[in-house]
Amino acid sequence: MGTGRFVDVIRKKREGSTLENEEIYQMISDYTGGKIPDYQMSAMLMAICFQGMNDRELTALTLAMRDSGDIVDLSRIQGIKVDKHSTGGVGDKTTLIAGPIVAACGVPVAKMSGRGLGFTGGTLDKLESIPGFRVDASGENFFQNVKECGISVIGQTGNLAPADKLLYALRDVTGTVDSIPLIAASIMSKKLAAGSDKILLDVTTGSGAFIKDIEGSRELARRMVAIGNGAGKETVAMITSMDEPLGLAIGNSIEVKEVIDTLRGNGPEDLKTVCFGLAGMMLSMGKGISYEEGRKLAEDALESGRAYEKFKQMVSMQGGDVRYIENPEHFEKAAESGELLSSQEGILCHLNTEGIGISAGLLGAGREKKDSVIDFSAGIYMKKKLGDRVKKGEAIATLYSADKKKLKNAMSYMEECYTVGEEKPEMIKLIVDIIR
Amino acid sequence: MGTGRFVDVIRKKREGSTLENEEIYQMISDYTGGKIPDYQMSAMLMAICFQGMNDRELTALTLAMRDSGDIVDLSRIQGIKVDKHSTGGVGDKTTLIAGPIVAACGVPVAKMSGRGLGFTGGTLDKLESIPGFRVDASGENFFQNVKECGISVIGQTGNLAPADKLLYALRDVTGTVDSIPLIAASIMSKKLAAGSDKILLDVTTGSGAFIKDIEGSRELARRMVAIGNGAGKETVAMITSMDEPLGLAIGNSIEVKEVIDTLRGNGPEDLKTVCFGLAGMMLSMGKGISYEEGRKLAEDALESGRAYEKFKQMVSMQGGDVRYIENPEHFEKAAESGELLSSQEGILCHLNTEGIGISAGLLGAGREKKDSVIDFSAGIYMKKKLGDRVKKGEAIATLYSADKKKLKNAMSYMEECYTVGEEKPEMIKLIVDIIR
Repeated sequence: MGTGRFVDVIRKKREGSTLENEEIYQMISDYTGGKIPDYQMSAMLMAICFQGMNDRELTALTLAMRDSGDIVDLSRIQGIKVDKHSTGGVGDKTTLIAGPIVAACGVPVAKMSGRGLGFTGGTLDKLESIPGFRVDASGENFFQNVKECGISVIGQTGNLAPADKLLYALRDVTGTVDSIPLIAASIMSKKLAAGSDKILLDVTTGSGAFIKDIEGSRELARRMVAIGNGAGKETVAMITSMDEPLGLAIGNSIEVKEVIDTLRGNGPEDLKTVCFGLAGMMLSMGKGISYEEGRKLAEDALESGRAYEKFKQMVSMQGGDVRYIENPEHFEKAAESGELLSSQEGILCHLNTEGIGISAGLLGAGREKKDSVIDFSAGIYMKKKLGDRVKKGEAIATLYSADKKKLKNAMSYMEECYTVGEEKPEMIKLIVDIIR
Repeated sequence: MGTGRFVDVIRKKREGSTLENEEIYQMISDYTGGKIPDYQMSAMLMAICFQGMNDRELTALTLAMRDSGDIVDLSRIQGIKVDKHSTGGVGDKTTLIAGPIVAACGVPVAKMSGRGLGFTGGTLDKLESIPGFRVDASGENFFQNVKECGISVIGQTGNLAPADKLLYALRDVTGTVDSIPLIAASIMSKKLAAGSDKILLDVTTGSGAFIKDIEGSRELARRMVAIGNGAGKETVAMITSMDEPLGLAIGNSIEVKEVIDTLRGNGPEDLKTVCFGLAGMMLSMGKGISYEEGRKLAEDALESGRAYEKFKQMVSMQGGDVRYIENPEHFEKAAESGELLSSQEGILCHLNTEGIGISAGLLGAGREKKDSVIDFSAGIYMKKKLGDRVKKGEAIATLYSADKKKLKNAMSYMEECYTVGEEKPEMIKLIVDIIR
């Protein structure tokens, strides 16, 4: 397809017609092959922002993006593999809790995580904050670990959905990032390439989520579920609240410590609720049981300590020093810390959760560029949550960093991220909805 | 402005906000300066296709495009210079009739025409079909000719609105040509650079026009008038019908012959009506009289033969052989000709006028590429017009070409361009509306 023909496809979309599957496949293959120039693709992306895509078109787009690279083969692992993916949140350590729970209940967790940019590290970074933990296990070890332990989390191998990388880079500079169909295709192209049998999506909503309004989150969830099912993989989405950080800890080793607390039965209620929901749904999908039954199994696995043991086993198999799990006080402490004190008395009635995530990034907990080095001990520990009463001068959170200047910057940023008022905030349910 | 900031401007337009004049100026200056890449500009153009631009934004865009190149200085010519511009039609030779009429009434016509691609040649090509006629008069001669004769038509000198050329090339390959605001800015940027005091726009509508529906044509007229007036130049638009070719002749020398006939008082009624309208309006604008008074002056100038004399004078001053004007049979005849015969009996009730223009191009009357050589004698002479009765086997038109094969191709193309039926077609007025 030369530029001569593709312009007709752009016009077709611009005029509101639906594209044929063949046109969509050809577009992605020609774009990744360098036959369609960026200036045509960006016009097409903008037309899609306005005209959208129906479920059939969107599934074709996603499959074309998936097929632009490698597809992971997990078929050697017995059982139904359920992948869990979150659209992103602040303090989101659910994989490290729900994963061991699910594995402890006999459903294999074979997770390959990507490393993205973010305010805080991703799951891989959190795990790497455990001294010795290795996420670069070769393919052979990975399969062996899943077989023996029931769970392994490693870095992505292979070149998954390179078309998505190209398209994302173009969207980023052409004002076409905020498009629910394009976001859905981007996420699902990587998920469908990751080789699981079923997909559970944790679609966050609220001030700390990528999409902040509930209607948008619901629409994103609906579109992704349609793509997954359209591609022949059972897909379920849970919409979860991100109006405040999940749990109390935000960072890397600080989140691992909260994970350990939670697996030992001492976790914050909101984190437990969401983890039981996610693990329950993964078990439901993996075992063909009801969601309620799945949740019961999940609670059991946690309360019996089996999930904690599974976590320790995983850390050990991947080279991590289990003494840190058993005695979390071994984790290195941040050199600098400071308390964010409330400027007035009242009720903590709003948190700019994304802003809190940015503060954690300023402390050194995240990766600004691809090759940035993460400060594992940096982070934030919330001492108040939404709806709590605070006195003037009382600590809302403790901030940790290796660097005094970073601490100061983050502190002044975070001072703008909370509101103390007179009225109790309206709280939405932690698990807002389930979309299948 | 680097790519970092321009993406915010794209998003602003995408979200439906209006852009500041400064943002629009910077955009055009950065784009023509190579600081904004094509892939960002094409996303912006597509966003404009969907979100439009208000009159203030559109005027700023047009002025920025005008200011990207040279601006013609006609101030040395006494009097009010009124430029006439047509959005394009088939058989449109109005400049060669209205121009001499207006000049004969004492309003100077100093016209610089561009050479575009088209089914048939432009005004310059039509003039060049008169042996000896030169359109490359140097600036000095041009001013001298306008002073002495009151009229001169030459090829464009200088680099007018180069931003428009760049933008048009990008729109052409990104499906963003059909946007009334972008079309309006493109036309008006060149008109505002062309140095006249006032602008009369002939906005064609119907099957032979660039914009075929009356609502679209009215909108284009309205937008261009707003831009012109917003830029401080009185601008009027006449919407004229292009549901069939204007007059009977389509081509180059064949159109010049029809011009001569018309200036001698023997022209087709539709052509005369439109020319009186256009010339009348130019006189109204140039002399500060009413449109009705202008029309009367125009009719007088034609009927008295003064316009014909003015035309001969112009041809003579620009080196043309006046014997061809006095004896049009001198014009070279096409080697090949053939008649398009009606396949059935009835009333000629629809013409695909654009298709007839394409047929003329196939005969050799137009320029396919920039360096194509025009066959001046090629063209079409209509023997029937809309609403006429035709018998089966009766000629609808005669086609002329230098080349037998081209004649055959054009003939079979044109066979699909007319409909003979039972009912009289609904005819819109020749001058549909005047927009100020």
